Amino acid sequence: MFLSRAFSSCAGNLELMLIERVTTSSEDAITPSGVVPSHQWFPSSLWSSTIGKVHLEYAGAHQTGRIVTIKVAINGYGTIGKRVADAVACQDDMEIIGVTKTRPAFGCDLAVRKGYPLYCTFDDADRIAAFAKAGYECHGGLSELLAAADVVVDCSPGKMGADNKSKYQAAGIKWIFQGGEKHAMTGMSYTSCANHTENLNAEGTRVVSCNTTGLSRTLVPLYNHCGSLSVECTMIRRAADPGDSKKGPINAIKPVLKVPSHHGPDVMTVKPEIEINSLAVAVPTTIMHVHSIVATLPEGHGLTTESVLELWNASPRVVIMNGAETGITTTAEVMEFARDMGRTWGDLHEIFVWEDGVKLVGNTLYYFQAIHQESDVIPENVDAIRALMGTESDWKVSVAKTDAAIAALFE
Amino acid sequence: MFLSRAFSSCAGNLELMLIERVTTSSEDAITPSGVVPSHQWFPSSLWSSTIGKVHLEYAGAHQTGRIVTIKVAINGYGTIGKRVADAVACQDDMEIIGVTKTRPAFGCDLAVRKGYPLYCTFDDADRIAAFAKAGYECHGGLSELLAAADVVVDCSPGKMGADNKSKYQAAGIKWIFQGGEKHAMTGMSYTSCANHTENLNAEGTRVVSCNTTGLSRTLVPLYNHCGSLSVECTMIRRAADPGDSKKGPINAIKPVLKVPSHHGPDVMTVKPEIEINSLAVAVPTTIMHVHSIVATLPEGHGLTTESVLELWNASPRVVIMNGAETGITTTAEVMEFARDMGRTWGDLHEIFVWEDGVKLVGNTLYYFQAIHQESDVIPENVDAIRALMGTESDWKVSVAKTDAAIAALFE
Amino acid sequence: MFLSRAFSSCAGNLELMLIERVTTSSEDAITPSGVVPSHQWFPSSLWSSTIGKVHLEYAGAHQTGRIVTIKVAINGYGTIGKRVADAVACQDDMEIIGVTKTRPAFGCDLAVRKGYPLYCTFDDADRIAAFAKAGYECHGGLSELLAAADVVVDCSPGKMGADNKSKYQAAGIKWIFQGGEKHAMTGMSYTSCANHTENLNAEGTRVVSCNTTGLSRTLVPLYNHCGSLSVECTMIRRAADPGDSKKGPINAIKPVLKVPSHHGPDVMTVKPEIEINSLAVAVPTTIMHVHSIVATLPEGHGLTTESVLELWNASPRVVIMNGAETGITTTAEVMEFARDMGRTWGDLHEIFVWEDGVKLVGNTLYYFQAIHQESDVIPENVDAIRALMGTESDWKVSVAKTDAAIAALFE
Amino acid sequence: MFLSRAFSSCAGNLELMLIERVTTSSEDAITPSGVVPSHQWFPSSLWSSTIGKVHLEYAGAHQTGRIVTIKVAINGYGTIGKRVADAVACQDDMEIIGVTKTRPAFGCDLAVRKGYPLYCTFDDADRIAAFAKAGYECHGGLSELLAAADVVVDCSPGKMGADNKSKYQAAGIKWIFQGGEKHAMTGMSYTSCANHTENLNAEGTRVVSCNTTGLSRTLVPLYNHCGSLSVECTMIRRAADPGDSKKGPINAIKPVLKVPSHHGPDVMTVKPEIEINSLAVAVPTTIMHVHSIVATLPEGHGLTTESVLELWNASPRVVIMNGAETGITTTAEVMEFARDMGRTWGDLHEIFVWEDGVKLVGNTLYYFQAIHQESDVIPENVDAIRALMGTESDWKVSVAKTDAAIAALFE
Repeated sequence: MFLSRAFSSCAGNLELMLIERVTTSSEDAITPSGVVPSHQWFPSSLWSSTIGKVHLEYAGAHQTGRIVTIKVAINGYGTIGKRVADAVACQDDMEIIGVTKTRPAFGCDLAVRKGYPLYCTFDDADRIAAFAKAGYECHGGLSELLAAADVVVDCSPGKMGADNKSKYQAAGIKWIFQGGEKHAMTGMSYTSCANHTENLNAEGTRVVSCNTTGLSRTLVPLYNHCGSLSVECTMIRRAADPGDSKKGPINAIKPVLKVPSHHGPDVMTVKPEIEINSLAVAVPTTIMHVHSIVATLPEGHGLTTESVLELWNASPRVVIMNGAETGITTTAEVMEFARDMGRTWGDLHEIFVWEDGVKLVGNTLYYFQAIHQESDVIPENVDAIRALMGTESDWKVSVAKTDAAIAALFE
Repeated sequence: MFLSRAFSSCAGNLELMLIERVTTSSEDAITPSGVVPSHQWFPSSLWSSTIGKVHLEYAGAHQTGRIVTIKVAINGYGTIGKRVADAVACQDDMEIIGVTKTRPAFGCDLAVRKGYPLYCTFDDADRIAAFAKAGYECHGGLSELLAAADVVVDCSPGKMGADNKSKYQAAGIKWIFQGGEKHAMTGMSYTSCANHTENLNAEGTRVVSCNTTGLSRTLVPLYNHCGSLSVECTMIRRAADPGDSKKGPINAIKPVLKVPSHHGPDVMTVKPEIEINSLAVAVPTTIMHVHSIVATLPEGHGLTTESVLELWNASPRVVIMNGAETGITTTAEVMEFARDMGRTWGDLHEIFVWEDGVKLVGNTLYYFQAIHQESDVIPENVDAIRALMGTESDWKVSVAKTDAAIAALFE
Repeated sequence: MFLSRAFSSCAGNLELMLIERVTTSSEDAITPSGVVPSHQWFPSSLWSSTIGKVHLEYAGAHQTGRIVTIKVAINGYGTIGKRVADAVACQDDMEIIGVTKTRPAFGCDLAVRKGYPLYCTFDDADRIAAFAKAGYECHGGLSELLAAADVVVDCSPGKMGADNKSKYQAAGIKWIFQGGEKHAMTGMSYTSCANHTENLNAEGTRVVSCNTTGLSRTLVPLYNHCGSLSVECTMIRRAADPGDSKKGPINAIKPVLKVPSHHGPDVMTVKPEIEINSLAVAVPTTIMHVHSIVATLPEGHGLTTESVLELWNASPRVVIMNGAETGITTTAEVMEFARDMGRTWGDLHEIFVWEDGVKLVGNTLYYFQAIHQESDVIPENVDAIRALMGTESDWKVSVAKTDAAIAALFE
Repeated sequence: MFLSRAFSSCAGNLELMLIERVTTSSEDAITPSGVVPSHQWFPSSLWSSTIGKVHLEYAGAHQTGRIVTIKVAINGYGTIGKRVADAVACQDDMEIIGVTKTRPAFGCDLAVRKGYPLYCTFDDADRIAAFAKAGYECHGGLSELLAAADVVVDCSPGKMGADNKSKYQAAGIKWIFQGGEKHAMTGMSYTSCANHTENLNAEGTRVVSCNTTGLSRTLVPLYNHCGSLSVECTMIRRAADPGDSKKGPINAIKPVLKVPSHHGPDVMTVKPEIEINSLAVAVPTTIMHVHSIVATLPEGHGLTTESVLELWNASPRVVIMNGAETGITTTAEVMEFARDMGRTWGDLHEIFVWEDGVKLVGNTLYYFQAIHQESDVIPENVDAIRALMGTESDWKVSVAKTDAAIAALFE
C-alpha cells in the first residue's frame, strides 16, 4: 500500500525532489511504469509522465547554481494572490519572499500556514504593530518587502494601480499587475502565448483578465495559423465567486449595457492584429465564465473542424473534451473534473473547450469555451515573471516549466 | 373612490363593454381625461388611451352581427394553452368553445373557474367518465370538441404533432401548432410581423417559438428597411419555467453543444431572406431568455443607432426602455415592470430592448433583448387564427385589435 | 363569446358593481350558474360565489351614504405601498387620496397610470418642482397630503419611523407602520386575527412583518383553541425579492447568527400569550419564505391532525392544499398557483399550508407553511385602517369585506 | 525556496514517509519549528504539528510488521467511493486492492491515475472485456475483487443493498454500506463517536448519512454530558451536488412533506438514547446542508453557552469558528475556507459550527451547523473498517490516526 500510494496518487515529483536532495538518483529509477493512464478521453497533456523529466532538469540546474532564484513579493494575498504565491513557490527558479495583508485578519492564517512571510500593505508603524498584537509575526511594511524583492506581483483589489506603480518604480523592481487594472496605466500587457517576447526585460506588465487570457489561448493559435481573424464573442459570466455571498442576482440575467463590451477588445492589448468585439451578460452562477465565440477566418484558411481541434490540442493550457462521451455537459461537470484533478481549490488553469461544441462552417468557426475565473491567469503570472526578468525567452519553455512544477504537486 | 377605481386602474374597457351591453353610450363619456400618463420613460404604446376606441369599434361591429365569431378549441390547457385561451376569449371575433385536459387533475380547476368547457384529450369513454367521478363536468372527447370548432390551437406538450395533425385534418378544421413542433411537420410557420399574408387562408400553421418570435420582432423591421441582413445570435436561455421545480442546473452554465444551434435558423421558416445563425446556453434562472445579437447590415443601410431605435419603437410588441434611467438593468426588473403592468401571470407579451444596450458601429449592430418565454407568442396565436380564417388580411390591423382587447382587460 | 367572457373569466364582481351603478338588479340575475367549480382540491374560500353577496351589500350601503369614505394616504409607493394602494382603492369605505415618491423616478408612472395623485415625500419646494420638470403632476409635499388624510400608511423603506411618526402626530391623523419598524417605536402592533379589538380607535399601529403575520394566521387559531402554546420555528427565508438583482447569495445558505432570532418572538407583540422562539436562514430564492414549525400543545388539547386542518380551514387567509394530489410540492408551484388566481403581481395574500406536511404526534404539532413575502400583509393593512378608524369592530367582518373587495377585482 | 516549500506548504508528512523509506531519520530533524501558526481564529486541531508524531509511530509499527495491512475493496467508485479510496490509501494499516466501475466510462481515468486496480461491478465476461476494448486494464469481476479483500466498502448508488450484502456474505468478508441504505437491511449502523464499541468485530455495518453523522458529532458529546437529550431539528438541505447539473429547483424551496422527516430519527440507529425529530427542506444550493437545531437539556445540566462550545471544541471533527470575526457568515465562505485547507475536492470532513450561532437559554440550546454533504462521512468509513476488523477498540485513537494520515497529505 505504501509503495503504490507514494508512486501513484500523490506528489510523484515531490518525491523526485526529496530524493534528489538526500541521495543521488537517476530518473529511470523513479519514474514508475504503469502510472500513465491508457485512457481515451482524458487529455494526456494534463497528467503527463514526461513532466518529471523537465522538472528534474531544472532542479539539477538549480542545484549547481546555474539558475538564480528570483525573489517574488505578492502585494495582496487574496483570491489571486494566494494562488499566485503557491504557483511561484513550487517553481525552482523563484521564491516567495513575502505577502502583504492590510490588517491582521482571518486570511493571515493561510499565509502563516503556507510559510510565507507576512508584511503589512502599509509602512505605518501602528498598522504593522497591530499584527503582533493579534498574534501574527509581521516582517515589516510594504517598502521593506519591496526592498528585498526582484519583482512584485500586485494582486490588490480595486484600482490602486497608479499609486502602487510609483512605489514599485521607486523601489527599482519589476512589477506585474492583474487584469483589473487598465492597459493605459501599465502600458504593457501579457499573455504567455501572445506576447511573451514583447515583454522580455520590460519594466513591468499587466497579466490580462481571466476572460482575455482565455480568449488568447484559443484565438492566438488560430491567428497564427490564419494570418488574420475577426471575432464576435458573447461572454456569459458568473456573477460572483464561490466564496462571495453578497452579490446577486439570484434569479436574473444581467446584460452589460456598455455595447460592445470592453472584454473582447482587451485581447488587442496582447495581440493587436486580432479584430474582436464582445457582448457580456452576468448570470446567477459562481463557478465559471462561458464564451460563445464566432470567429471569421480569412479565405483560404485551409482548416477543418478537426484541424482546428488539433491546433488547440497542440496549444498549452487548453483542455478539449467531448461532452457527449464524458458526460461533461455543463460547467458543473467541468469543475467536478477539475476537483478530481486534485489541485488546491479545485482550480482549472486550463481553458475548457467542448469538442462537440466546435464547428467550422465555411469561414465561420463557432465554439464554446469555459473559463475558471479564479485560476486561469495563475500560471501566466509565473511566465510573466520570467519574461520581465529575462530568464526565459521561449514562451513554450516557460509554460512547460511552470506547468510541470504545478502538476508535480498534485500528481 | 368607486368611480376613480373603475375608471383608472382596472378594466376600463371592460366597463366599456358592459355599459355597451346594457345601455347606449358614446365613447366620449367614458374615456377619462387625465388617465394618460405624462411619463417620459414608459412606452406609450403599452398603455394607450386609444385602445378603447379600437375595441369599441369592433364591439359595435360584433353587436350588429357583421363579424362572425370564430370557434376556437384549445388542445392542451397548460402553460401556453391557458394563456392563449384568455387571449382568445377577450377578442370580440372569436370564442373558446372548449379546452382539453388528459385527466381530471388539479389544472382543471382553472378552466372551470374561467368558464371554459372541459373536454378530455382522448375519446376513450372511461377516460372521459373519470372527469365526472372527480367532480368535473367533462363535455366529451377531443373528437367532439373538434367537431364543433373552426380552428384548434394545439398546445399539447411533447412531440405529438403528426398524430394530432391527422385528427385535425380529419375533422376538417384549421389547426395551429406551437414552436415545439418542427416546421417540416406543419409545412408553414407564422409570426405576425413576418408572414401573416403567406398564412392567409392556409390549412394550418405553426406559431414559432418564443425565441424565434422575439427575433422576428426586431429583425424583420430591420430587414424590411435594409433589404438584406446577416445575423449571429447567442441565446442565454432560462433553464426552467417559474413553476417548474424539477429541472436544473442550480449552479452551472449549460451550452447547447449542437453548434450552431437550431434557434436562430428557425427565423428563416418565417422570413427566409434573413441569414442567421445562433449559439445557445442555458443558465440558472427561471424568468426570461436574453438574446445577444450581432447583425451585419448591408452597405448603404442609412441607419444610425437612433434610427434603429425609432424603427423598433414604431414596431408592434417591442418595448424599449433605458436601463440607466429606469433602473431596469436585469431581467429581474423587467419582470417586475411586467408585474406592474398587471396582466395575468405578470406576462410580458412584448420583446424588451434596452435602449442603452443598442449600438450601431459601422455596419454592425449590437443589441440585447429579453424574451418572456411563457407569453410572447400568446398574441401571435390570436393573429394566426385570423390569418388562417382569412378574416383579417392586414397584420397590423390584427395586431392592433389583438393587443387592444388584451390591454382592455388590465387597463 | 362576449357574454361568457364577461361572466366567467374576468371581474365578475366588477360587473356587479358596474351594473349596480347604472341600473337596478338583483344578485340572482347576475350570479351565473355553473361558474362555481366543483373541484376537489381547490379551497373554495378563495374563489367563492358568496363573495359577490358580501360585496353587493357593502356597495349598496355605500350608495346610500351610510358609510363614510376614509381618506388614506400612502407614504412610500414601493413594493408594499403600491399593493396597499390597490387594496385600499377597491374597498368601498376608503379611498386613496395620494401616494408619495421621493423624486420623479420611473416608479411614478405606475401611480399615474393607476390614477393615484402623486405627492413628494418632502415639503421642499425644489424637490416638488422637480416632478413637474420631469413631466409628472405633483400635488404637493407630504404635509399637504397628510393635511387631507384621515390615516397614513407608512410604506417607506429603512428606519425613518420615529421622524415620520412625529409628522403624522403633528398632522393629527392616524398612522400605520410596517413590520420593518420596531414595536417599541409604535407601542402597538396589529394582525387581523390576533388583536383587532386592542387596536380599535388607537392612534396608530404597526402591521407586523410578513413572517409574523404568517405565524399569527396559523398559531392564533391554535392558541385560541388550546389556551396555551409553545412554539419553535425555523424560518427559511428568500434572500431577495423578485425585482431585486443586487442581493445574493447565489449559491449558499446564510444563517442569521443572532440566536434565537427576532422573528418568532415578534408574534408576541400581537399575541403575548404564545411562547415562541425561532431560528432563521436565508437561501438563494426570490419567491417565498417557508416556515418549519414545531408547536407543543398543552395536555388535553383534544386535537388531531385532521381537526387542526379543519381549524385552519375555518380561519381566514389560510390556504390548505395537498402537495401529492395537486403537484404543488415546492414554492415554485405555489407561486404558479397564485399566478393562476390572477391577482396583480401574482400575489398570494393567503398563507399556504401543505395538508400532507401537517402531523400531530402526541402533543407535538409539525407543519410547514409558505409565505408570499411581498403580499400577505396587504389585506391586514386594510383591516388595520378600519381598526384605527373604529369603523368595524369585528375582525372577521372586516377581513371578509377586505377580501371580498379584492377578490371581486380578479374573479 | 526549495526547502521552505517542502517543509511548509506541501505534504510534510509524506516527506516523513519517504525519508523513512530510503534512509534513517528521527522526527526531530524533520518537524520544522515555526510552522505552527499563532493564529487566533483557526482551530489548531485542523493543522496540528502533532500529527506527524502519531503517523510516524504507526508507520514504524507497520515497518516492523506489527500491524497487518487490511485489504479494502471499494464497490462503486463515484462521489463517495473516490473519496473513501483516498482516505483508506493514506492509512498505514490498510490498502485499496481494487475499485469497481460498471463500465469503461470517463470516471475510470481517475482510478487509473490514482493507481487503484480497476474491477468490473459485474462478473459477466463480456462486461469485463469491454474495459480492455476501451483501453482500460480491468483486473476482473466483483467476485474476484471480493475474494482478495478483507472488507468491502459499498459505495454503489441506489438501493442495491440486499443483493450486494448476500454477495459480500458469500465471500466471507466484512462489509460497510453507506447511509443511503436502510438500517433494517444492515442491522447495524456506525458513527465514530457514537457506537464504535458496539461495532467491534461485527460482520458488517452502515456508516450513517452525512446528516446523521453531522448530528452525532455535536449531539453525542452533549448526551454523554447530560445523560438525556431531546432534539428538534430542521435540515436545510442542498438540492444537488456541485457536479450535478440535472436536478433543480432553480428558484424554490422544497419541503419534505413526510413530517416529521426520517433524517433526525436516524441518529437513534447509532445512539438510541437521544430523542430526536426533524423537518427537512431542500433549497437551491449545491454546497452544504445547514442544520437548525433546538436541543432540550435535562434539568441540572450544568452547562453554559461557553461550556457547550468547550465540549465541542474537545470533540473530534467539529470546527468552531466565529462568523463575525472571520467573515465566514454563509456556507459559501465555509467552503472557501475548506478550499484553503487544501484537501482534494476542497473537502471539509469536519462539521462546521458558528460560535456566534450557539446560545443556551435555560434548558434550551439553539445552534446552527453546516455539513459538507460529500465528505463528512469519509473518515468515518476508515474508522468503521477498524471497528469491523477489530484492530482498534478505542474510537478516539482510531479517529486521531485516521485524521492524522489524511492531514499529512495536505499539510
